[in-house]
Amino acid sequence: MSNAGGLGTLAGGYLSPEVLRAEIRRTRALTDKPFAVNLFVPTAVHDPNLSAALDALGPLRTELGLPPAPVITSWAEDFDAQLAVVEDEHVPIFSFTFGIPDAEALTRLHDAATITIGTATNVDEALALEDAGVDVVCAQGAEAGGHHGTWAGDPWRSLIGTVALVPMVCDAVHLPVIAAGGIMDGRGVAAALCLGAGAAQLGTAFMLTPEAGTAAPHRRAMRTARATDTALTSHVTGRLARGIHNRLMEELQHVEVPPYPVMNALTTDLRRTAAQRDDGELMSLWCGQGAPLARDGSAQEVVGALMANLVAVVQDLYASSADNEAGT
Amino acid sequence: MSNAGGLGTLAGGYLSPEVLRAEIRRTRALTDKPFAVNLFVPTAVHDPNLSAALDALGPLRTELGLPPAPVITSWAEDFDAQLAVVEDEHVPIFSFTFGIPDAEALTRLHDAATITIGTATNVDEALALEDAGVDVVCAQGAEAGGHHGTWAGDPWRSLIGTVALVPMVCDAVHLPVIAAGGIMDGRGVAAALCLGAGAAQLGTAFMLTPEAGTAAPHRRAMRTARATDTALTSHVTGRLARGIHNRLMEELQHVEVPPYPVMNALTTDLRRTAAQRDDGELMSLWCGQGAPLARDGSAQEVVGALMANLVAVVQDLYASSADNEAGT
Repeated sequence: MSNAGGLGTLAGGYLSPEVLRAEIRRTRALTDKPFAVNLFVPTAVHDPNLSAALDALGPLRTELGLPPAPVITSWAEDFDAQLAVVEDEHVPIFSFTFGIPDAEALTRLHDAATITIGTATNVDEALALEDAGVDVVCAQGAEAGGHHGTWAGDPWRSLIGTVALVPMVCDAVHLPVIAAGGIMDGRGVAAALCLGAGAAQLGTAFMLTPEAGTAAPHRRAMRTARATDTALTSHVTGRLARGIHNRLMEELQHVEVPPYPVMNALTTDLRRTAAQRDDGELMSLWCGQGAPLARDGSAQEVVGALMANLVAVVQDLYASSADNEAGT
Repeated sequence: MSNAGGLGTLAGGYLSPEVLRAEIRRTRALTDKPFAVNLFVPTAVHDPNLSAALDALGPLRTELGLPPAPVITSWAEDFDAQLAVVEDEHVPIFSFTFGIPDAEALTRLHDAATITIGTATNVDEALALEDAGVDVVCAQGAEAGGHHGTWAGDPWRSLIGTVALVPMVCDAVHLPVIAAGGIMDGRGVAAALCLGAGAAQLGTAFMLTPEAGTAAPHRRAMRTARATDTALTSHVTGRLARGIHNRLMEELQHVEVPPYPVMNALTTDLRRTAAQRDDGELMSLWCGQGAPLARDGSAQEVVGALMANLVAVVQDLYASSADNEAGT
């Protein structure tokens, strides 16, 4: 992505500190352009009740040939150890979701000239990021795929569409804003810039590129998905997320599940095994509402098409605006 | 609105044919510009069970000094009679939601040179409108306030954000597309045009104008609302709608209610009385997620500010795009 002219992001949230370090070094070997690393700010876990979730997952695990219950050594990777790697490796840009790192960590990152990007799904979160001294706000609209980043407020009420969210966040903070959610091509990027954003963040748009590492059943599901095929669930990982509706969402929808990251940990090996067995019904098929607009091709080709489209959209808009003013 | 340079729409759905005719004539007396009339395509009603809804509404009615049950003579106005008025009065533009009028009616409207605008919340609906010979598609994104127009497919799955919906609808149909949902100012209109729409439809943006006739408690609620204060409910009218969360939504949320338009009819006098009594908690406070961006001022002033903002946004976008190409 960085070589193609975008800002590539290394998804570090689920990587151990050792693997994260190796991936950062591999990224550096692949590009001399800037890149970002994204981590998940931890959520406190208080003695969750696992029984209902384990009962519901048992039969699905048996179906996939897994032992009745998963073996879990920790609910999530050690955030402080991950962050130490980010600092130690002098990563140029650090983005995060699900909260704000503590003030000391942010100070250390600033002292190391690392640019920080925090994620907001509502105006209160954007203001909190600004107050904390974060450099850039990523405003994530409800169209977005995968986890919704809400950490202050009710996640179901923070499903604000990109068209409404971005101008409000831009009005509320003095920081540069990145628009995310449902942006799929030059039209979407141009729209994001009109709304006041300085940049656009695209995930789903690149999921069909070979570079994305998207599992085969996930790609197949995306190729036939309509926008109405995505759904929101908080029952697969314990946190609200959007993906293509499938049997896993269905089976878990009425189960009382523990919060993230506990439920995420409980379903990790099941979802990974389903993906390996080419079973799209029991894995997570995260993607945004724009999925039908995802293009095939290399990252370079998708970025190239997007940029050409963006230039054409801006020129058309300007020309028709000039025509209108001339009264033609 | 029409005098201010927009296309004003007369909300005819809940007007009797007689009142609709009078309102059309009053509109004609107020403007020599084009205007539209909007009607609701009827939904079939099959012997609904009212008991749970009436039980839940009873105490609220008593609280407002209303008799225990509403007196209802029909669930909705007679659509055919309303449409006959639209035809008879040679209304220039006819828009509709919740379905498609029958082929004969559409033919008569076309023969009378009336432009027809149908509402779609997903691609399937847009294609059906095109197949039926409708002239223009209004693509309504999930940010929109009031009723969501879904009539083909699951309404909860058709909550597609404007940024994702509009480009997909534009790609799917050959008709002009109007973007709706979350569009509040020149930034939103510019974004809609970038996404491929030929025009933008704004409702919430004008709700604080004196012309809107918005009830006082509704205005007050909008002035302090954050985007996270709106919620979706299908329990107030029997059809999915967005508004500021209040006690009425809360009281009805777990009640098994009859479908639209039956539930709508059951709650009409209660909501009207609450509005008259200045009680914002027991009326419907419909508005979109962009509510915090609604401006005060006359329709003329709001349109003027919007157009100036639109021109500035387009010029800035073009200038920064030209700078980028020049490598500055």
